[in-house]
Amino acid sequence: MHNLTQQSYIAGDWISPSGANFRAQDPVSLEVLAEHKNCQQSEVNLAAQAAKQAFDNYRQTSILDRAALLETIAEEIEALGEQLITVCNQETGLGLPRLTGELGRTTGQIRAFAAIVKDSTWTQASIDTADPARQPLAKPDLRKILKPIGPVAVFGASNFPFAFGTLGGDTISALASGNPVIVKGHPSHPATNELFASVMEKAIAKSGTPKGTFSLLQGNAISLSTELVEHPLIEAVGFTGSLRAGRAIMDVAAKRTKPIPVFAEMGSVNPVFITESAMTQSGSSIAQNLANSVCLGTGQFCTSPGIVVIPKNSDFVNSVAQVMTNNARNVMLNEGIGKAFVQGVETFIENSGVTWINKNDNLLDTPIQPPNIVLNTSAETFLNNSELQHEVFGPATLIVECDNEQQFIAIAHALDGNLTASIHTTEQDDQIVKALLLQLEQKVGRIIFNGFPTGVEVCGSQNHGGPYPAASVAASTSVGIDAIYRFVRFVSYQDTPSHLLPAELQDSNPLNIMRRVNGQFNANPIK
Amino acid sequence: MHNLTQQSYIAGDWISPSGANFRAQDPVSLEVLAEHKNCQQSEVNLAAQAAKQAFDNYRQTSILDRAALLETIAEEIEALGEQLITVCNQETGLGLPRLTGELGRTTGQIRAFAAIVKDSTWTQASIDTADPARQPLAKPDLRKILKPIGPVAVFGASNFPFAFGTLGGDTISALASGNPVIVKGHPSHPATNELFASVMEKAIAKSGTPKGTFSLLQGNAISLSTELVEHPLIEAVGFTGSLRAGRAIMDVAAKRTKPIPVFAEMGSVNPVFITESAMTQSGSSIAQNLANSVCLGTGQFCTSPGIVVIPKNSDFVNSVAQVMTNNARNVMLNEGIGKAFVQGVETFIENSGVTWINKNDNLLDTPIQPPNIVLNTSAETFLNNSELQHEVFGPATLIVECDNEQQFIAIAHALDGNLTASIHTTEQDDQIVKALLLQLEQKVGRIIFNGFPTGVEVCGSQNHGGPYPAASVAASTSVGIDAIYRFVRFVSYQDTPSHLLPAELQDSNPLNIMRRVNGQFNANPIK
Repeated sequence: MHNLTQQSYIAGDWISPSGANFRAQDPVSLEVLAEHKNCQQSEVNLAAQAAKQAFDNYRQTSILDRAALLETIAEEIEALGEQLITVCNQETGLGLPRLTGELGRTTGQIRAFAAIVKDSTWTQASIDTADPARQPLAKPDLRKILKPIGPVAVFGASNFPFAFGTLGGDTISALASGNPVIVKGHPSHPATNELFASVMEKAIAKSGTPKGTFSLLQGNAISLSTELVEHPLIEAVGFTGSLRAGRAIMDVAAKRTKPIPVFAEMGSVNPVFITESAMTQSGSSIAQNLANSVCLGTGQFCTSPGIVVIPKNSDFVNSVAQVMTNNARNVMLNEGIGKAFVQGVETFIENSGVTWINKNDNLLDTPIQPPNIVLNTSAETFLNNSELQHEVFGPATLIVECDNEQQFIAIAHALDGNLTASIHTTEQDDQIVKALLLQLEQKVGRIIFNGFPTGVEVCGSQNHGGPYPAASVAASTSVGIDAIYRFVRFVSYQDTPSHLLPAELQDSNPLNIMRRVNGQFNANPIK
Repeated sequence: MHNLTQQSYIAGDWISPSGANFRAQDPVSLEVLAEHKNCQQSEVNLAAQAAKQAFDNYRQTSILDRAALLETIAEEIEALGEQLITVCNQETGLGLPRLTGELGRTTGQIRAFAAIVKDSTWTQASIDTADPARQPLAKPDLRKILKPIGPVAVFGASNFPFAFGTLGGDTISALASGNPVIVKGHPSHPATNELFASVMEKAIAKSGTPKGTFSLLQGNAISLSTELVEHPLIEAVGFTGSLRAGRAIMDVAAKRTKPIPVFAEMGSVNPVFITESAMTQSGSSIAQNLANSVCLGTGQFCTSPGIVVIPKNSDFVNSVAQVMTNNARNVMLNEGIGKAFVQGVETFIENSGVTWINKNDNLLDTPIQPPNIVLNTSAETFLNNSELQHEVFGPATLIVECDNEQQFIAIAHALDGNLTASIHTTEQDDQIVKALLLQLEQKVGRIIFNGFPTGVEVCGSQNHGGPYPAASVAASTSVGIDAIYRFVRFVSYQDTPSHLLPAELQDSNPLNIMRRVNGQFNANPIK
């Protein structure tokens, strides 16, 4: 239990920021939950300087200490008990079952990172021993290892207040690899952010971690985000949110005297392709599951299927529409997101070729609890209007009907970068699917067969990223253990005395980890 | 033998570009060697469209075909025999011994990439098998692998016409990972570029590789570089050169509608620290070797030691100066680089606290063949003037004398990003060295003990990169096999029928490669 104070948390101190007020609102009752205050440049400075100072100590902590910090974080989150779920549900309206599930995933991923840190194989320790006799030049001893890069700014997402929030994957992967973190908490759920900061206060105290290793800056002002990204002591950014906000942060980072990497996951329309044979064999169950996938989390998933490409089939379109209409209308995360959803749908249906199949006149009246919307268009209209590829964040999907297989391929070819693409098919359609795959491999981070993109399995073979605009760095993932590789870089040591090397690279292999030694993986000491 | 035509090479065709003339000059005789023409937007379009088209086929070539292409490239380079070295020496003045050595390194690295490609372990194939019985949700089958990203633009360097040139590490690592390449050849050695294009013409024909896989655009106009980086079909950039040019390319790439990654290696001042005990024990041999390292390649190495930090010691400074004065004066790569060197030195000595120790009044007269220059200053002056950290590309080094150990640490703390740092020391100075290391690990990509940064060993544990401004992406290396990871990204396949997967991920493991299967590395088939 933590007594909520509407404060920010900077390097061990709870402070009342000096900036303008902003409000947290219950999206169900529309009740104002609390008044909060924006952090400003002075708080950014304080947090950044503390982070930089903490970095020198934090990056030297042993792998056991760092793993202990992560495990303590998971325990302290659980110790908050019902308060966390209750407070977060008030702020987000996501519902207790969903939040309970997300919390389990969140503590699970924290413990997964703790395990990775303890193992230390993730540091990719590599050793090439010397050969003084080599001609024409002696070969030096070279050893390299991944090292943390410094203070990371994290921008939490509105739609996953736990898994991509203040102590979500970005923060935890940065901490795991030895970097201090400054979180700009999402203003849609400030009390939830505060609870996570109280977790960090306890976990840092218990584990003896330097206090500057974590700060939480609350606020909704664009200037706060800009000042944080511009701060010269910030070395990288993790972001989950909209393309507009993500691109703005990318642009600020690129214009710095010293540009820094931004790892932004900026959403996606997640095209679903359904072949003729799959339609024939299981069209009605696909329609049912598709509709449910679109409605999951009120459509507020970065993996929500926003475009469905099918052979002309009005029965299928109507089936999807019927399930969507019958599914419960749920609340959006906040009024702003609800209004943006309504506006997005309206922009789509302004196109003469786009039809709203399950039309409901109340769209404008209740943006906070909108209907589940099925839109329909032709391949021709879709191919002639790249705006139809824009993400409409919420419970809507656009079904694109094709006259022939060439249009399937043409649509795949015309796609922007996406997190995922899905293909429903049977062996009968292997030929078209092979051609589709060839296109989709260039466009997305994950390809799903006979399933839907929502529900992101957390494992080593997961990839949650994709070409721009889905992500800023197509080569990175923000889900799974590989997320740790965003906030590190190699340092190579040449002819360095063993006792001055990081433990992972020392001759005796004191941590007993797997290393690449002259090209072979083993845990042997160097003689 | 190839008959030089002063043409560019686009996707199998030799073409005469339509742009303005530029000249290649012998830096020794100052004789104009040939008139060349700039490529323009139309040639950029032609090359980019051909590359995009070739990509669909090239990325599907088998690993054996791709390895065969690389091996054929190495053979065809060797088949050029003396012509390549002779032509390049005329254009660069680097001398036959150096160029012969660099050529061996270049064909060696091409064959190393061929071996890597054949092995296919570099693709980091990872498989997590399904568990349909898992509660509360069935676990899907997920498999991931690194895939090429598309056409790469490569900007060759002036100072390594082979190893970082038209068929240098950037081009070869991009080809190895399945990407077409468009080279903007360095205008300082266009005939050398043309010879490499003739190599590609033969290698592509012999191996049946799609012609659009390689193009060479000649030119010296900034607009050509900008148009290439702006082209929407280009997916990434490899660059080796100056900070000014590299940053300009970074800025163009960041402003695109779809920003793309730029892997720029932009040089460095490579600080060398010499502790009191090392100075006492072996000061004179360090002075000798330092001077030789600075003069190597007329100082035109990105790893040339430009700053030397020592305890106050005028004997050492004078020793370095004496060796440098006695070392031969060699030619710079071209007049522009020579003039920039003279200007850089002049800017330094305009500082009241900086002394030119081995002063030579002819500096201004012969920028193409300048003296080897030793500058000297105090720690205080250095710390108060960040301009003294700017790279002066050529045979000069700045020796910074410290009054105490705190100044050593303060200088390390004040350093910008660098490719390397070197420490000359003995066990007696472990305490100060540990404090130094803590700073330098944040500032550089490679740390060298009791040696010099010139001479970059090519092996798995090498790292050639560093924090900005040394490189645009601190997490990447442009030397060694890991350079391949710049031009790929993961694609994850969920519940995908085995016969539709890339060979590396298929159940039977037909390529017999090491894969991470449910967290364990092995080459076993999936049952």
